[in-house]
Amino acid sequence: MSDAINDKGMSRRQMMIGTGALAATTALASLGGWAKSAHAQGGPTEKWPWPYVKLDPKETAEICYKEWYRVFCGCAVINSVFSQLREKVGEPYKSFPVDAFVFLEGGQMGWGTICGSPAGANIVANLIIGPRIAGAHEGHQIAADIMDFYSKANMPVFVPASPKIDPATIPQTVSESPLCHISVGRWMKAANKPLGSPERKDRCARVAASTAYRLVELLNDWHDGKYKPTSSFSCSKENGITGQFNCTDCHGDKVPEAPKS
Amino acid sequence: MSDAINDKGMSRRQMMIGTGALAATTALASLGGWAKSAHAQGGPTEKWPWPYVKLDPKETAEICYKEWYRVFCGCAVINSVFSQLREKVGEPYKSFPVDAFVFLEGGQMGWGTICGSPAGANIVANLIIGPRIAGAHEGHQIAADIMDFYSKANMPVFVPASPKIDPATIPQTVSESPLCHISVGRWMKAANKPLGSPERKDRCARVAASTAYRLVELLNDWHDGKYKPTSSFSCSKENGITGQFNCTDCHGDKVPEAPKS
Repeated sequence: MSDAINDKGMSRRQMMIGTGALAATTALASLGGWAKSAHAQGGPTEKWPWPYVKLDPKETAEICYKEWYRVFCGCAVINSVFSQLREKVGEPYKSFPVDAFVFLEGGQMGWGTICGSPAGANIVANLIIGPRIAGAHEGHQIAADIMDFYSKANMPVFVPASPKIDPATIPQTVSESPLCHISVGRWMKAANKPLGSPERKDRCARVAASTAYRLVELLNDWHDGKYKPTSSFSCSKENGITGQFNCTDCHGDKVPEAPKS
Repeated sequence: MSDAINDKGMSRRQMMIGTGALAATTALASLGGWAKSAHAQGGPTEKWPWPYVKLDPKETAEICYKEWYRVFCGCAVINSVFSQLREKVGEPYKSFPVDAFVFLEGGQMGWGTICGSPAGANIVANLIIGPRIAGAHEGHQIAADIMDFYSKANMPVFVPASPKIDPATIPQTVSESPLCHISVGRWMKAANKPLGSPERKDRCARVAASTAYRLVELLNDWHDGKYKPTSSFSCSKENGITGQFNCTDCHGDKVPEAPKS
């Protein structure tokens, strides 16, 4: 249920890095990065990577925290990066309709699937770096790193300069999942606060800000040619099905009772 | 755990439709539809709705089926609609970088969260109609309808004119969830086929095509002013947490054992 570790304590992925297999992938990505999409109708924005300048993770997180109260998790993460790149770079960021992604809130319109924070971060990484079918594997890998970080971090990590709610009233929890339902549910149980509480909202604003902070750290590393994948798990390779890293979190005795209607 | 039904067999949402509360929402959406985003840096594509012409659901599904084999579920759904609108309308569809969304595959990079088909459809509906913060509530509602349709339909619904795999070898299953892991898992169990099989791939290509078909039906209704929400469930209102409609599907005795590593 995790990447196999060999007798030197190295995972298969780390070995690939060591032996140059991933270096080859990276070289391919560099070559393919500017290649036009194979799609005949691909527009001018389908050339990757998009121009990127390094951003300040802390400043990005502050923007994200404030934006949460306007556009919620997914859109806040996207706009915390793109609003800065609109100013510092211009196109194609000016032409990207960020606000359309408000629907990522609540695991997409309240359905509790993927939390908007990683969903938004995944969009940003893949828009800037490009899709794996264009040879740009780092966007895919950074998105996987974000899913892993989100699931394992003691959230919220980031504390804004001027929090709307006293941080002492907001406990930190580990979601063990990128799903909104599980992430929010675990926090609500630990905090004993309802979904509509100011504390839960501020927790989610700070989770979005924490995700944006990490995203910019990874993008800055990629920009400097220093990016290395921080996650290596593949559920399909390990278990023959898409999924997350901890099967027994849902398949087992740990699942809490459903709320009473 | 479902929208409360009154003694006339009407749900709260249907009553709202009847009493005009939703009509007011729709009026607001019409007024707000062309309003510019409140965001000061909003670009030219942040004016909604985007120009839309009615598309043929069957033709869209055929494009989606073929595109799956190039860009996989989420991106195939987006491009099945946008490749046509690029030709029939032009901008802003030409400037939208569709191929960046390949990462929606496998519930986002294989993590098994939201299936790329509804994730892609939700993006399309909200890009065309606009976000609820701009007053355009139908994008949000059509996306919720897509989640509901995806979860309850006997998938795959759509049969392409020239299927790559004999449809007789592809059973239909009801996912009861928009999550890739559950949708694919239920189908794999019914079909007794592995993730890497040509049958599973063609099933997913046809699921994407089925979702694109339904999406265009809903968008065409919206274009004609005939759209009415087909789903009304709100987990946060019913259960105080984000989530799907069937709590006991995961919280209960029905969860199968995890695969053996």
